[in-house]
Amino acid sequence: MIDQASLGLVCRALAEDLAGYGDITSAWTVPAELPGRAVIEAREELVVCGLPLAETVLAQIEPRAAFTCLTEDGALAKAGTEVAVIEGPARGILGAERTMLNFLIHLSGVATQSRRFALAVEGTGATVVDTRKTIPGLRAWQKRAVVYGGCGNHRFGLFDMALVKNNHLEAAGGVREALARVRAARPYYTKVEVEVESEADLREAIACEADIIMLDNQDLESLARMVRVARELRPGVVLEASGRVGLATVRAVAETGVDLISTSALTMGAPPVDLGLTLSVGGRSAAGREGGADAAGR
Amino acid sequence: MIDQASLGLVCRALAEDLAGYGDITSAWTVPAELPGRAVIEAREELVVCGLPLAETVLAQIEPRAAFTCLTEDGALAKAGTEVAVIEGPARGILGAERTMLNFLIHLSGVATQSRRFALAVEGTGATVVDTRKTIPGLRAWQKRAVVYGGCGNHRFGLFDMALVKNNHLEAAGGVREALARVRAARPYYTKVEVEVESEADLREAIACEADIIMLDNQDLESLARMVRVARELRPGVVLEASGRVGLATVRAVAETGVDLISTSALTMGAPPVDLGLTLSVGGRSAAGREGGADAAGR
Amino acid sequence: MIDQASLGLVCRALAEDLAGYGDITSAWTVPAELPGRAVIEAREELVVCGLPLAETVLAQIEPRAAFTCLTEDGALAKAGTEVAVIEGPARGILGAERTMLNFLIHLSGVATQSRRFALAVEGTGATVVDTRKTIPGLRAWQKRAVVYGGCGNHRFGLFDMALVKNNHLEAAGGVREALARVRAARPYYTKVEVEVESEADLREAIACEADIIMLDNQDLESLARMVRVARELRPGVVLEASGRVGLATVRAVAETGVDLISTSALTMGAPPVDLGLTLSVGGRSAAGREGGADAAGR
Amino acid sequence: MIDQASLGLVCRALAEDLAGYGDITSAWTVPAELPGRAVIEAREELVVCGLPLAETVLAQIEPRAAFTCLTEDGALAKAGTEVAVIEGPARGILGAERTMLNFLIHLSGVATQSRRFALAVEGTGATVVDTRKTIPGLRAWQKRAVVYGGCGNHRFGLFDMALVKNNHLEAAGGVREALARVRAARPYYTKVEVEVESEADLREAIACEADIIMLDNQDLESLARMVRVARELRPGVVLEASGRVGLATVRAVAETGVDLISTSALTMGAPPVDLGLTLSVGGRSAAGREGGADAAGR
Amino acid sequence: MIDQASLGLVCRALAEDLAGYGDITSAWTVPAELPGRAVIEAREELVVCGLPLAETVLAQIEPRAAFTCLTEDGALAKAGTEVAVIEGPARGILGAERTMLNFLIHLSGVATQSRRFALAVEGTGATVVDTRKTIPGLRAWQKRAVVYGGCGNHRFGLFDMALVKNNHLEAAGGVREALARVRAARPYYTKVEVEVESEADLREAIACEADIIMLDNQDLESLARMVRVARELRPGVVLEASGRVGLATVRAVAETGVDLISTSALTMGAPPVDLGLTLSVGGRSAAGREGGADAAGR
Amino acid sequence: MIDQASLGLVCRALAEDLAGYGDITSAWTVPAELPGRAVIEAREELVVCGLPLAETVLAQIEPRAAFTCLTEDGALAKAGTEVAVIEGPARGILGAERTMLNFLIHLSGVATQSRRFALAVEGTGATVVDTRKTIPGLRAWQKRAVVYGGCGNHRFGLFDMALVKNNHLEAAGGVREALARVRAARPYYTKVEVEVESEADLREAIACEADIIMLDNQDLESLARMVRVARELRPGVVLEASGRVGLATVRAVAETGVDLISTSALTMGAPPVDLGLTLSVGGRSAAGREGGADAAGR
Repeated sequence: MIDQASLGLVCRALAEDLAGYGDITSAWTVPAELPGRAVIEAREELVVCGLPLAETVLAQIEPRAAFTCLTEDGALAKAGTEVAVIEGPARGILGAERTMLNFLIHLSGVATQSRRFALAVEGTGATVVDTRKTIPGLRAWQKRAVVYGGCGNHRFGLFDMALVKNNHLEAAGGVREALARVRAARPYYTKVEVEVESEADLREAIACEADIIMLDNQDLESLARMVRVARELRPGVVLEASGRVGLATVRAVAETGVDLISTSALTMGAPPVDLGLTLSVGGRSAAGREGGADAAGR
Repeated sequence: MIDQASLGLVCRALAEDLAGYGDITSAWTVPAELPGRAVIEAREELVVCGLPLAETVLAQIEPRAAFTCLTEDGALAKAGTEVAVIEGPARGILGAERTMLNFLIHLSGVATQSRRFALAVEGTGATVVDTRKTIPGLRAWQKRAVVYGGCGNHRFGLFDMALVKNNHLEAAGGVREALARVRAARPYYTKVEVEVESEADLREAIACEADIIMLDNQDLESLARMVRVARELRPGVVLEASGRVGLATVRAVAETGVDLISTSALTMGAPPVDLGLTLSVGGRSAAGREGGADAAGR
Repeated sequence: MIDQASLGLVCRALAEDLAGYGDITSAWTVPAELPGRAVIEAREELVVCGLPLAETVLAQIEPRAAFTCLTEDGALAKAGTEVAVIEGPARGILGAERTMLNFLIHLSGVATQSRRFALAVEGTGATVVDTRKTIPGLRAWQKRAVVYGGCGNHRFGLFDMALVKNNHLEAAGGVREALARVRAARPYYTKVEVEVESEADLREAIACEADIIMLDNQDLESLARMVRVARELRPGVVLEASGRVGLATVRAVAETGVDLISTSALTMGAPPVDLGLTLSVGGRSAAGREGGADAAGR
Repeated sequence: MIDQASLGLVCRALAEDLAGYGDITSAWTVPAELPGRAVIEAREELVVCGLPLAETVLAQIEPRAAFTCLTEDGALAKAGTEVAVIEGPARGILGAERTMLNFLIHLSGVATQSRRFALAVEGTGATVVDTRKTIPGLRAWQKRAVVYGGCGNHRFGLFDMALVKNNHLEAAGGVREALARVRAARPYYTKVEVEVESEADLREAIACEADIIMLDNQDLESLARMVRVARELRPGVVLEASGRVGLATVRAVAETGVDLISTSALTMGAPPVDLGLTLSVGGRSAAGREGGADAAGR
Repeated sequence: MIDQASLGLVCRALAEDLAGYGDITSAWTVPAELPGRAVIEAREELVVCGLPLAETVLAQIEPRAAFTCLTEDGALAKAGTEVAVIEGPARGILGAERTMLNFLIHLSGVATQSRRFALAVEGTGATVVDTRKTIPGLRAWQKRAVVYGGCGNHRFGLFDMALVKNNHLEAAGGVREALARVRAARPYYTKVEVEVESEADLREAIACEADIIMLDNQDLESLARMVRVARELRPGVVLEASGRVGLATVRAVAETGVDLISTSALTMGAPPVDLGLTLSVGGRSAAGREGGADAAGR
Repeated sequence: MIDQASLGLVCRALAEDLAGYGDITSAWTVPAELPGRAVIEAREELVVCGLPLAETVLAQIEPRAAFTCLTEDGALAKAGTEVAVIEGPARGILGAERTMLNFLIHLSGVATQSRRFALAVEGTGATVVDTRKTIPGLRAWQKRAVVYGGCGNHRFGLFDMALVKNNHLEAAGGVREALARVRAARPYYTKVEVEVESEADLREAIACEADIIMLDNQDLESLARMVRVARELRPGVVLEASGRVGLATVRAVAETGVDLISTSALTMGAPPVDLGLTLSVGGRSAAGREGGADAAGR
């Protein structure tokens, strides 16, 4: 069971793979009723994400096939873990295989990447959060994957939080005026985050009662100093570090004392995971051919 | 001007960013008629891809804004190159910014990644080609990006070429039988590629007149030997290497004499490029805040 | 120019009126090229809302017709004001008439109703705001109409603000626990409103640092007392009154000192306004027949 | 089970309420598996309409929840009647609640309003019928509600009946010519109704064998006189009164002897009914918070 | 300019022809900017129908190409008449060619077939009309084509006229009861047609004041007799003959004195016309290869 | 169970028949719960095609009705064969009847027409294949029908095979250059067919290693000569005859020795078959009224 938007996503993905005469190779070589059994397996340690999509892909192609989850979205699967098993006509499994794996490999990649970042800051008070820099069409699922991996979500889009950035400051003529406009426009409704690049702006933002302050593109030293200044002025202010943070550097950033560290590395360009499908037909088992982070998937 | 499928892609991407009250921050802080001028700029050397999508994004949000391409899809842009310039109401540009950049950064990433692979095999007779391992919903554009980057396309989906893989061989009971079935089903119509994993299968595939042979997951030595065997048996046969090929190893694979090397590294997990947008409002110019491969994009 | 969602709204509305052979009466009685000129006119004082929709309706039916706005969405139009004028083939105007008017009459009704509430609380510090109790399919436009009428918007949907209501309190086991869960789940991100029905809950909500407190279904006396209590405990807390507020009672509620008064009377069941279209064909003018709050519109 | 058009209506309504991260408050405060039981209850006497839509709303959000109708569309429910009961995860019920109620409150409002008009003319020979003045997107359901309330349907749209109105008369040059054109164009196919405003036009319409005559905007005296004239000339002619008819005046209009009285008061601006949902979670029951004609529904 | 439903029809038709990599042959062999000029030409005498669809097909594929109608829908074109001319990039014209022709050949086939029937009954008082036996998805356009060919339209669907057929008579228990039910249900609204198979039913139908009577599956003699009986009983009753009418027999049927003759031969199975496209590229002209009633169109 | 594209086809077909108030005649004359039993029957010898569509049509209208196939798509049904039987509420069966039959009559018409062609060439080595000259919106189903009738499929669209036609040759400057371009563009990927009209072109095409050669619009004598020439030059080359082939002439064409004969006569303008539905209501049976190749279907 899946929401309508995700169903649309699945149908468009299938249409990419199955126009015209559909899966011609399987139609020509695999008998219509030949039974198959396929195992979807983690080939490296990964966080699973995308099972409901994969299940829906299969149901669209071959409703007689049964998709059984052996784990669930958000689970950590060691290399060798069987993630799901499929039983049904082999021809339908072959037609669904690539599209199922494309969802699983990409979304588990995002979840697994998020886990790396979550582990990297473990024990600090900071949370790594995602951004709006997502693959067009996949934002909702990427953001679920981020949470499965142990990181947090920043705002979903432009609509569910006010974030006053550089351009807004410039258009309004500075922090004070921008925040006054926000308060005047709909002040009771949402928290306001402001992006600052200097200590002066930071002080002004706190004076204007910004709820969250984004410290953008600072080196570690200046970040630490700005955190100290902010905490002195208003202990409970939420502080977000942003910009050019990678796995190698995220812990140092976290140790400056910020609350949030946002990075697009969770969603855009997260490496795909090695996860594949092994199909056995008519009772025998073939070596797994499809899937994997670097297997080709022609 | 863009096809209907791409228009749908754009509208769905915008809906991710602009539900509910839309871009509330800009609505509250940027005067409705404040003019803006934005430059989209390459911040590293990259191959541009996605300009028609970005232009359509902007037109959906703010039809009064003008989007002028200063380069075109497929162009190689050095760091610092201005890729496009936008003039119109600043509020609309801010609402479109993230979605425009998400398309450009991802697709230019695929094109730029493809260029790396194309350069890596330059001078050998081999072409690097893509696979069906693509991000769901973006296959058509990813495959365009691959060509812009100098690589080639493999089949689009399951429907436009017969590729007999392991599971088909098993279902049919071997190379000979599988190819007989293909010939019987619709022999005149399409070329047939067969995946082989042993020299015995290779010989059989050539005997059965497969048009293209995929040498799957071979080490370099065995790949070279199979190429020699195949060329002896039928000089003109097309040979494809596949499986676990990376940038570091692709040239060595090419030098074995294969014609095609397929890899999902072109499309799935291609690193995003550093490309950003700098907006100036009311005549002044802010430092570019949005974009880039590792800038956050909250 | 109109967003894709609104275009869909227009096309579905037109499909309700124009299935099968379409506007058969006009096709049979009005010559194809007979010119027409129509005036859309306010027949009572009203706040205009829906002109872009009406313009799009006409453009879908008869692109050769010109729709000229003589006022704009949000304008206050006295009885007799010409709101827009249309020139083009009479047959197309007749086919578009009812759908144009249905949008204008309903949405201007919401805007005009909102104006009544805004005027009723004028000079108090309170703002009347809308709710999620809207006509399915029209929320975005109804909420625009509310603002045109001088009231404010509450959250758009379930997604852009946390509002802890009775059922959430019960599920969590009280105010303290519910707010603790909210803080734990995503505390930095959004303001939190809590619905309270007793002074004890009010005190607890303030102690737990709820940003906004909804005082639900209180009589005026108890409302005034709760406002005093709240202001003493935390002067800046935002207070919302809600429940069974009508035009007759809204000012008294406002005078208790609350900041916000939410009511579904703005959107659901707002009376339609009297606004009609007078068409003249071939140079002559007929008495206006279509439109109005109680004219029939068969 | 619901038709595709109604399913679209449900999905668009849900999308208004559940963009981005969806029902964040319930996600943060209500445990995923906490069981709930909700009763939808009439809080005033009303005619029920919209149950299949409400059931579909719930099924989209939480397929594991069971929606049991305790009455059916078209039933008269006294205040206090339980209309439906829902059992399933509380979180899903909360996510569906507002959208279910918006459909029920609006459509039952139309049905209940129609009942008022039907009762008002009871015992006269007249039927009150609806018009095309409907809320865009809801015409089919509003027209069902009208019938449930005991009134009748006029034509659905412009396509299923010829109704020659003022502008058509003017375009054609009078009743005689307009009806001649109708007969010439497709005379065998549909009945023809003509709108008349004077006794002269009435006589001409009857002479031209109009099937139905609409007596538009007449006072009671003139209406009665025109009915007498018409009945004398052709006893069986169907007569419709139209224009500015309200609940207070409709019986007097009916007593003039007309067959049909059309009014947009059934559909556009029908007051919402007081109908609410009371949810109990984990076995306990909260006071009903959502719903009602004037409860807020934030 | 075309309505939204027709635009959908065009886009779905194009998607059938242009999935995956699209028009690969033209992409590989025709330079991108090579200019072309194509003439769409009638190769037999035919009635043109479908030009707005063809124009929209081209605009979707290649907006830079100009489509100029040299005739219009409904025109009679002699063999050799140039129907339209296209100027623009040859590659885009080739991509649009087949889809444009499929619409034109099929719909002009329906119009031309309708013309044959219209001519066959010329001078009798009868009109040949279409039925609901249409190609799924093309009803609106097929029914336009019927009118262009000089025949008439019967009801569009089940919704715009009551036609009491055999099964309804049986369910209701005969003509008298069925017509009583119709009158009771919504008697003022629509004309009623009844299907009769015997003179007894005919007499009853006239006694019950059916507006139109369908004389189903009668031989000529019995048809003539039933017409005489009906005219005697009620001179103005509309009589429709139906069932197994072909071009060879339609005039004899018309001469029995019926008003309407309905036949599915106009729409379902109408022979395609011979209409083709001749493209010249780069200034030269090729012999016309595409199109025609029996040319292959691979 | 049916794919999403076919479901869309069904829903659009139903919308053509059931706008506005839907099936008004049945609603007025057939009691809501009256049981019905309908038999769909072949009234001439035909090849069945379209049962899954008909079943889906019924399920959309009346999910409580049971549709039982007594044969299957692709079966040869003698006149009098019961193809399917339906049991459920009579009203729903009547609402679905016409749309079910429209699909079955048209698609079985294509399958039956294909069978005629398949029988005509039986025993020769040739296969008759379809073309892209199909009814817009129905290509996938028409092409299935072709196979059920015993013929073969040519390419699905422009995307799944390269077919170099006259215009491409002209654009490229002849066979040699066109094939060189194809090889250069994507040589490994797809077979290439070339259309030739002279023996010179034929020789060149074979020299350039075209995989398939289309001999377009040749008389029998020249066709036979070109087959001989081609076979001498390259025995295994696939040869396709095309252009102006009918049932009367196809065997003679086949006997020239070609492998494939393509004709649009299979799909465009295939005569509808005589197939009808007989409904019995409340236990009794009416004479079958709907359906058939020339019954009217009003």
